[in-house]
Amino acid sequence: MEIGSRDQPPKHEEKLENGSRKWHFHGKQEMNRASSLSVRGILKAITDNLNGADQRPTIMLGRGDPSEYPCFRTTPIAEDALVDAIRSAKFNCYAPAIGILPARRSVADYLSEDLPYKLSPDDVCLTVGAHHAIEVILTVLAQPGANILLPRPGYPYYEAVAKLSHLEVRHFDLLPEQGWEVDLDGLEALADDNTVALVIINPGNPCGNVFIGCWVARPLLKVAETARKLGILVIADEVYGHLAFGGNPFVPMGVFGSIAPVLTIGTLSKRWIVPGWRLGWIATNDPNGILQKFGIVESIKSYLEIAADPATFIQGAVPQILEKTTGCFFQKIITVLTEAADICYGELKEIPCITFPHKPEGSMSVMVKLNLLVLDGIEDDMDFCTKLAKEESVIILPGVAVGLKNWLRVTFAIEPTPLKDGLGRVKAFCLRHAKKE
Amino acid sequence: MEIGSRDQPPKHEEKLENGSRKWHFHGKQEMNRASSLSVRGILKAITDNLNGADQRPTIMLGRGDPSEYPCFRTTPIAEDALVDAIRSAKFNCYAPAIGILPARRSVADYLSEDLPYKLSPDDVCLTVGAHHAIEVILTVLAQPGANILLPRPGYPYYEAVAKLSHLEVRHFDLLPEQGWEVDLDGLEALADDNTVALVIINPGNPCGNVFIGCWVARPLLKVAETARKLGILVIADEVYGHLAFGGNPFVPMGVFGSIAPVLTIGTLSKRWIVPGWRLGWIATNDPNGILQKFGIVESIKSYLEIAADPATFIQGAVPQILEKTTGCFFQKIITVLTEAADICYGELKEIPCITFPHKPEGSMSVMVKLNLLVLDGIEDDMDFCTKLAKEESVIILPGVAVGLKNWLRVTFAIEPTPLKDGLGRVKAFCLRHAKKE
Repeated sequence: MEIGSRDQPPKHEEKLENGSRKWHFHGKQEMNRASSLSVRGILKAITDNLNGADQRPTIMLGRGDPSEYPCFRTTPIAEDALVDAIRSAKFNCYAPAIGILPARRSVADYLSEDLPYKLSPDDVCLTVGAHHAIEVILTVLAQPGANILLPRPGYPYYEAVAKLSHLEVRHFDLLPEQGWEVDLDGLEALADDNTVALVIINPGNPCGNVFIGCWVARPLLKVAETARKLGILVIADEVYGHLAFGGNPFVPMGVFGSIAPVLTIGTLSKRWIVPGWRLGWIATNDPNGILQKFGIVESIKSYLEIAADPATFIQGAVPQILEKTTGCFFQKIITVLTEAADICYGELKEIPCITFPHKPEGSMSVMVKLNLLVLDGIEDDMDFCTKLAKEESVIILPGVAVGLKNWLRVTFAIEPTPLKDGLGRVKAFCLRHAKKE
Repeated sequence: MEIGSRDQPPKHEEKLENGSRKWHFHGKQEMNRASSLSVRGILKAITDNLNGADQRPTIMLGRGDPSEYPCFRTTPIAEDALVDAIRSAKFNCYAPAIGILPARRSVADYLSEDLPYKLSPDDVCLTVGAHHAIEVILTVLAQPGANILLPRPGYPYYEAVAKLSHLEVRHFDLLPEQGWEVDLDGLEALADDNTVALVIINPGNPCGNVFIGCWVARPLLKVAETARKLGILVIADEVYGHLAFGGNPFVPMGVFGSIAPVLTIGTLSKRWIVPGWRLGWIATNDPNGILQKFGIVESIKSYLEIAADPATFIQGAVPQILEKTTGCFFQKIITVLTEAADICYGELKEIPCITFPHKPEGSMSVMVKLNLLVLDGIEDDMDFCTKLAKEESVIILPGVAVGLKNWLRVTFAIEPTPLKDGLGRVKAFCLRHAKKE
C-alpha cells in the first residue's frame, strides 16, 4: 500500500464551535502513581540524574540482573534447550492458558524434590515471569475490602499491583537486628477478618537473608502456623530460591503447605540468570486442597485464560532446562555470589556512614543503613542515591523504595572488578560528603 | 534439601472449635465469568465434548493458529533471528518496560511504510502479543463510568478484559449484507460523553472482510470522521494486518490518524504464523499529539512499567525478522490462505442450512449463518458446535461467542486436505440432521 501523496486523507484541522476540540478520554492518574512505586520506575528516576560527561562506566548496583556479566552467563544447556525448541517448530502455536503439560510436569517434579509430598502438573501454572505471577495472585485475591500483609522492607512490585487492584496493603516488619526475621506479633496484630494472605520472600529480597526452615527455631513453620491461626494463605516468593550461600540452607515454604496453604512463586530468572526470558510459575502447595475448595485455584486458572502467556517455545524448553542443568553450573553461580557478597560486606562495613546489620547469605542484594548525622548536605536516602548517580555514576536503590527510609538496597550480583570499583566510588562519595568535625 | 521423612513438619489436622476451619480467602466469581467469555474458554467447553472413541483426527476450525501445518511454517529467517538473539547472550537481561529501542524502531519503520507520515520508536510499545496490547489499552481507558464501542460480531477478548476492568461495553453492528461494513448511524446513536473509544478490526475477525481504505467510499475514513465527531479514539486491531487476498488491499487505520487519534494493535503472530511467540505492539498513530496531550500515552507507559514483558531475546530478534523477511514468504502465505478461503467458500455454500453472506477476503476466518429451521434437533449454534464436536470431531466456534447467535465462525487457515475433510464432515453432519420433509 502506498498512500502518501497520491491518496492523502483530507485535512481536518478545524476546531469545534467553541474553539477547542473536546476529546473524551484521558490518562489514569492512579496508574501513573502505581508505576512510580515499581523498582523499574524508581531506578529510572535515579538513572535520569546520571552525568553524561562522566567518562567512567555506570555501575548498576540497583537491580538483580547480572546477566550481562560473563561470569554470570547462563548455562549452554538452557540456551541449547531454547534453540532446540525453536528449531523443532513444534512450539510456534498458542499454548493452553495454564501452560503446556510437559513444562508444568517438569516444574512440579523440580519443586517436589524439596517437598515432603509430590506436586502434580495440575498444581503448577506458568506465568510471564514472577512479576506476572504476583499480578495474577494479587488480582485474584483483590476482593472488595480485602487486605494483604506485606513485609517491610519488601519488594515494591507487590504494592504497585495491590494499588491497581484496590487490594489494601498492611506492612509487618522484618527485624534487622534479628537477621531480618518476621515480627510475628506485629503481623498478628495487623490481621483481621478481611486479611486474605501474607507474603514471605525467601531468600530475602531486599534483605539478603535466608529464613531458617528446618532447625529447632523454625521461623518458617511459625509463619505457617500464624497463617493457619489467622485463616490466611501464604504467598511464598521464592524468586531467589536456592540462591543461599550462608549458614541456612534454602527451605521452600511449601514444606509447610499442610499447615497453611501456600502459593509459591518461582522463576528461571535468578537461578539460571535469565531474567529476560520471562518464565515463571505459580505452584499450589496445598496437600489439603483448601485453595481448590475455596475457589482460589479456579480463579487463578480463569484469570490466566485472559492473561498474557509466556512464549510457547520457552515453555517447550523448560523440561530440558530443569532436568539437564548440572549442579556444576548452580555451584558456579553460588561461588560467584558468595565472593560478591564478601566483597560487598568487606567494602561497605569500612564506610563510616553505613551500618551493615546482617551479612548477606542469600539472593543478590542486601540492606544497609545510612547514618545521615555524619553526612553533610544529604537529606535522605533518595537524595543520597540521586547525588551518587550524578557524582559517581553508581546506581543504588534507595531504601524508601522498599519501605525503609534512609536505608539502601545494594545489589552485589555483578563481576568482582566493577563491584569493587562501584563500592569504592560509594566510599569516595561518603567521605567527600562526610561532616567535618 | 531433603526434608521428607527425617524432618516432617508436625501434623495439623485439628479443626477449629466450631468444627470447621475458617479461611478468609475465596475465589472471584467475576473472574470466572470473564474468562468464560474468551475464545479459549469457549473452545475448551466445546472441545470437552469430543468423542475419544472417534478414530479420525480432530479437525480444528475454531482458532486462528495454523502454525502446526507444514504449509504455514514460519520463515527460516524468523527462526534464525531468534536463534541468533539467543546465541548472542545479549538479551538474557530485563528489557525496558516499553521494549528495547532497536525493536521499537524497526516496528515504527515497518508500520511507517504504509503511512503518510513517519512513526518514531517512541510511538511504539511492545507487548506480550496482541491480547496483552488489548489488556493494556482497555485497562488504561477504564475510568469510572466510561464506555467503549465494540463491533458485533467481534473478538470476545475485548468483552472479557472490559468486564474485568469495569469498562462498560456497547455494541455497534457490522452489516453482513453490506460486506460487514460498520453501521455508522447505529454507532453514533450509542455514543455519549462517557464514550472513550471504538474498536475496528481490520482485516476482520471474525468476518474475514477487509475494510475499503483508499477508494471513493472510504469506510475507514468515515470511521475516523465519526470518531472525531464523537471525541473518541480509535483502537485499530490490525492483528491480521496484510492478510488480505480479495479485491480490497489492506489499509491501516493509522492513515487517518490526523483525523482522530488511533492506537494500532499489531503482532508477529498472524503474518509470520507464530502466535506462540507472544510479540505484539501498540503504535500511537496520532500526528497531532492528542493522546500525548490527554495523558493516554503516559498512562500506557506507566501501566507497562508494572505489566508483563515479551521475552527480551524475542524483542532482540524483531529487527532481523521485520527487515529481512522476504516478500516471497508473505506471498506464499497469501496464496495458501486464498486457496483455503476458496475451499471453505466452495464447500460451505453447498450446504443447505448454511448461508454465506460474504466470501472471505482477509484474515483467517469467516462468518456463516445457520438456518435452524431446516435442521432437526439442533437448538442453537452452541448446540450445533457441541454436537459437531461429539459426532464429527470438528471444532467450530459458535457465533454466540463473537456476538452473533446462530451464526458460526469458521477458521479456514489449515492445510487443504484436512480442511476439505473437516468441511465434508460438517456437510455430513448437516445432512444427517436435516429435517425430513
